[in-house]
Formats: sequence, C-alpha cells, structure tokens
Amino acid sequence: MNAEAYDATPPLGGTAGEVLTRYLHQRAAAFLRALSLRGGNEAEADALLRGSARRIGGALHIYAPLTDPSWAEPLRTELGWLTTTLGREPQYATRLARLLSALRRLSVAADEPAVAVGGAAAPAPSGGPLALGAARAGALLERQLTLARTRAHSASLQAMGSSRFHALADAIAVLVSEVPLAPAAAAPARTAMPPLASQAYRRFADAAAALPLHRAAHPYNADAVQASLGADLTADLQDAPWHQVRVLLRLSRYAAEVARQDGDAADRQRLAEAAGLLERHREAAESASAVAAAARTPRIAPATAYALGVLHADQRHEVEAARFAFSRLWQAAIPGPRGL
Amino acid sequence: MNAEAYDATPPLGGTAGEVLTRYLHQRAAAFLRALSLRGGNEAEADALLRGSARRIGGALHIYAPLTDPSWAEPLRTELGWLTTTLGREPQYATRLARLLSALRRLSVAADEPAVAVGGAAAPAPSGGPLALGAARAGALLERQLTLARTRAHSASLQAMGSSRFHALADAIAVLVSEVPLAPAAAAPARTAMPPLASQAYRRFADAAAALPLHRAAHPYNADAVQASLGADLTADLQDAPWHQVRVLLRLSRYAAEVARQDGDAADRQRLAEAAGLLERHREAAESASAVAAAARTPRIAPATAYALGVLHADQRHEVEAARFAFSRLWQAAIPGPRGL
Repeated sequence: MNAEAYDATPPLGGTAGEVLTRYLHQRAAAFLRALSLRGGNEAEADALLRGSARRIGGALHIYAPLTDPSWAEPLRTELGWLTTTLGREPQYATRLARLLSALRRLSVAADEPAVAVGGAAAPAPSGGPLALGAARAGALLERQLTLARTRAHSASLQAMGSSRFHALADAIAVLVSEVPLAPAAAAPARTAMPPLASQAYRRFADAAAALPLHRAAHPYNADAVQASLGADLTADLQDAPWHQVRVLLRLSRYAAEVARQDGDAADRQRLAEAAGLLERHREAAESASAVAAAARTPRIAPATAYALGVLHADQRHEVEAARFAFSRLWQAAIPGPRGL
Repeated sequence: MNAEAYDATPPLGGTAGEVLTRYLHQRAAAFLRALSLRGGNEAEADALLRGSARRIGGALHIYAPLTDPSWAEPLRTELGWLTTTLGREPQYATRLARLLSALRRLSVAADEPAVAVGGAAAPAPSGGPLALGAARAGALLERQLTLARTRAHSASLQAMGSSRFHALADAIAVLVSEVPLAPAAAAPARTAMPPLASQAYRRFADAAAALPLHRAAHPYNADAVQASLGADLTADLQDAPWHQVRVLLRLSRYAAEVARQDGDAADRQRLAEAAGLLERHREAAESASAVAAAARTPRIAPATAYALGVLHADQRHEVEAARFAFSRLWQAAIPGPRGL
C-alpha cells in the first residue's frame, strides 16, 4: 500500500483482537439477520448467509494466529460445509441460464437480434437440423440441470433443518458476543494484522504469477479448448491453478477487509475486476464440464451430441477468453505487495 | 505509392501494350513449362499451372481496356474453369490435413507433446469416450475427404485430357508470341497502367474497409462461432464479404505485379501477410463446413457427432482468429491508395 492510500484509510485502532472481534461481530450479526429473512426472499437470504459464512471462515483462516485454534478450526470446517451445501443450488441455476443463453447465441443468425435471456425457455428451432439439435441439447441440459437444482434445493432444506446446522448457528450466535482469542491478539492491530493480510495477498500474487499469463495474454492461443476432446483429467489439470488463484484472491480480499488494508480505489477496483474474471473462468469451466456430462447421456441423437460438442468448445473458449482478460488486466498493472 | 518507393522501382518503359504483352509472355511460358513438367512432380506442376493461369486471368481482368474483349473474355472464362477444376484436389488434401491436425491438437493433453503432423493418420484414442469419438470423427473425415479428393483427381485428369483443355493450351501458346491488343494499349505504360492498378487496389481497400474490422479486432467477440448452430446460410452470409476481399486482394496484387506498382518492401510484406490471413480465413471456414457436412452422415455415433461439434466450433474460432489478425494488421497501418 502506498503512503497516500494509507493516509486515506481510517486508523486501525486498538488491539488485533478488538479489530478481529468487531469484524466477526458484524458478520455474525449479518448471518443471524439472514436466517430470520429466510421466510421472505429465500435466494437473497441464502446469498447473505453464504457471504457472511465465507467471510467469517476467511477471517478465521487468515487471522488464525489470533484465535484459539481448538475453537476456530472446527468452526471453519462447519462454515465450509454450509457454504458448499447452500452454494450448489444457485450454481446450477446460473449454469443453466449461462448454457441456454450460449445456445441461443450460437443458434441465431448474426443479423437476427438475439432474444433477451428470459427464463428457462430452450432456444426455438429456427432452421435446419443444426438448430433442431440445439433445441434438443437445450432441453436435455434443462432437464438435467433442473433435476440437479431441485436435488440441491432439497439438500439445502435438509441441511438447514439438521442438528448440525443448529449447532453451527449457535456457535455463530456466540460470536456476536464473544470471540475466543489467542494471546497474540493482545498486540496492537496496527502491527499484528497487516503482516497477516500481506501474507494472504502475497500467496495470491505468487500463485497468479505462476499462472501461464504470458501465454494466456496471447489471443486465440486455443489452449483451453485443447481439453475439449482430451482425457477427462486434461481440463481439471489445466483449470485447477486458476481456480486456486480465485480462492486465494477471495481470501486476500476478505483479509484486507478485516485489516482495512484494501488499498486505494484503483487497487480495489482492479482486484474486484480480477475476481470477476476468475469467477467467469470458473463458471465457464464448470459449464463446459456439465455439457460434457450431458453428452454422455445414453441414446441421445447425433444432432443433439453435435450441438453439445459445439457448446462445449464454446464454453472452453469462454474459459480462454476469461484467462486472456485476466492476464491482460494483471500484466498491465501488478500492484506491489501491500501493508508490509 | 510514396516518392521514395517509386524511385526504387524500375521505370515502366514502353507502351502499355508492350508491358502487358511482356508479362503475359512470361506467364504463358510458365504455363507451358508446367505442362511439360506434369510427367514428373504432378502436384508441383499443377500448382505452377494454376498460378500461371490465375495470373494471366487476373491481368486480363484488370487490364481489360488494353486488350481485345472478344478474345480476352472467353479466355478468362476458360482459365477460371481450369483453375477451379485443378484447385479442388489440393484443397481437399489441405482441408483433411488441417482437420486431422486440429483433432489431434484437441485430443492431446496440454502437457503431452503433440505428435508432429505426419501423413493422414487419425489421432490415436488416448483416453475416455471423448478421445474415441475424436478418433472416429477423424476416420469419418478421412474417408469422406479422401473420397472427394480421389474424385477431384479423376476430374482433373479428365479435364487435362479434354479437347476443351487442348483448345485452352493452344490459346496460351498463342499468347507467347502475340497478344490481341485494344487501341488504348498504344498509350505509354506509365500513364495507362497505374490508374488501372490503383483502381484494383481501391476496390480491395474499399471492400476491406466495409468489413466489420472494429468488431473483429476485439478478441473473443465470438461472432464467427455464432454460425456453428445457426441456419446453414448464417456462415455463408458472414464469410462472403471476407472471401470477396481475399479475391480482390489477389487481383490487386497481380495488377501491381504487372504494372510494377507493388510499393516498397514493407507494403508488399503487409499485403502478403494480409493475403495469408484471408487464405487462413477461407481454409478454416471451408473446413468448418466440411465438418458440418460430415455431421449430417446418417447413423453416426453420438460420440462421433460430439467430436465433430467440438471440431466445428474450433474451426469457426480459427475463422474468428484470422479475422482478428487481419483486422489488427489492417487497422495498424492502412497503406494509402497507390499509383494515383
């Protein structure tokens, strides 16, 4: 962080324990508020619940030396379970919308205005066997992803009614009043927290630097699409480092939030953009996998399989496009490690 | 053309008729030499034959006002017939090699070294049903394109043995000694030829400027792949203006060759690169069409259809990549109209 940005940030007063406790209080309160909102807009409440749970888990991870590990570690495990369980349903919904919208884009003529992405309607066959295959592929994906989504919804409901969830909610309720701290938390926040936030940032920046950024910044390198017909592991091996960078960036952003080490507006903007691109990368990669899975459905028509093949390659190109955009963004202005 | 480049060009001496006659003599001699070479390396001889025929036809087209139209127009028609007939076989060969190489690239893992593109061998199945589908798709394309190639070869042999061809060869033999000129050919080459060459260049440059270059220069715009599942006409409508620019660029380069209006080395280099990119655009577009045609084969397995879908989208992305490269090249340095 440069001196100017540092001056603009409110001072980090009190002990590290006080600052961390204040942050966890706020997030725990949001978590409990989300719980009470679930009767109304369920999707919105769940998003707030997941966001709060992820931030609490992230803060406990990055600032682990400041808390009692025998309390923090099991809590982090439970928070991870909750966010994973609740995260599935919206992921399936997003994936289906993305794939149907891509099919629609691939099916319309360039001069035909694309219909605004409505709900879940499959693209209408507008000409020829290819378009018919696209319509069938859309129907197949809709069936499979809607089923997956319904199952995920049931699993969420079941999880929310379980004694495991009630124990977690109780633990979060305790967080509103009290956080079990380690002795290191007695140090001033100004000296104890920035090194931990910087460490989180460095982990992310190092992982990002280890990505094949130079190659990815070269447009149309066709690297990501290589995985389309390769062995099933090819895509996973290729994508894993990018997914890892996405997780590390999220942790680093949470850590900066706690320690108010999130730099100036331009820094924040750049990191938010980077996070958005890595999220796009993940969605495209997972959508491509869903298409490959759908193509393994027995007894599908060749025209359907053909459309799925086109869609798979299209999503792998979206993966490539996201890598390209991330590489360009990242190489254009690499912010130095901050706070230290 | 700027003054410096003009000074470096040898002077365009004599009448326009003399310059055109000299050029046609050279090309006709090459044509006849290619004919006598056919006993040896047939492919090489045919390439020389096609190149000479295309240049003679191009020169007669651009410099039409300088020649007797009742002689030139039928000759151009016959030259067009010959280049089209002889051009099919190498096109099928190139297309097959391109598609098998793409399948191989799509099937190997990123860290597995791609095997050097050998002959016509289909990629070996290296894992999973996707790779098996790729191998079958390769075998299907190989069968279809080899059959098409064999037919084109027979058609070439038949054409070369026909009385139509012998009449054309006689007309070319006459060109070596005598070119039927129009009265306008008596004008000095320096004044009569550059305007015609410039006109050819302007036609090309205007058509290039009318392309959606701004859009194409934006990487990963996904325009070309839209055609993959659209009605069959979508790709044709999209690609036609680019193909047209390719033809106009070739004519303009031939015209410049005749009138020695081909600018400085940088100009020539840029136009050669542009021509190469438009050729890549055409090859990718036609390869994608061949894949779509193969996918319409009755009773193919879904895995094969899937691999063909991936390959189709891949080739449409190659189309997009070629447009991107052309747009960047062209927007970076648009040479002004030359010679006038």
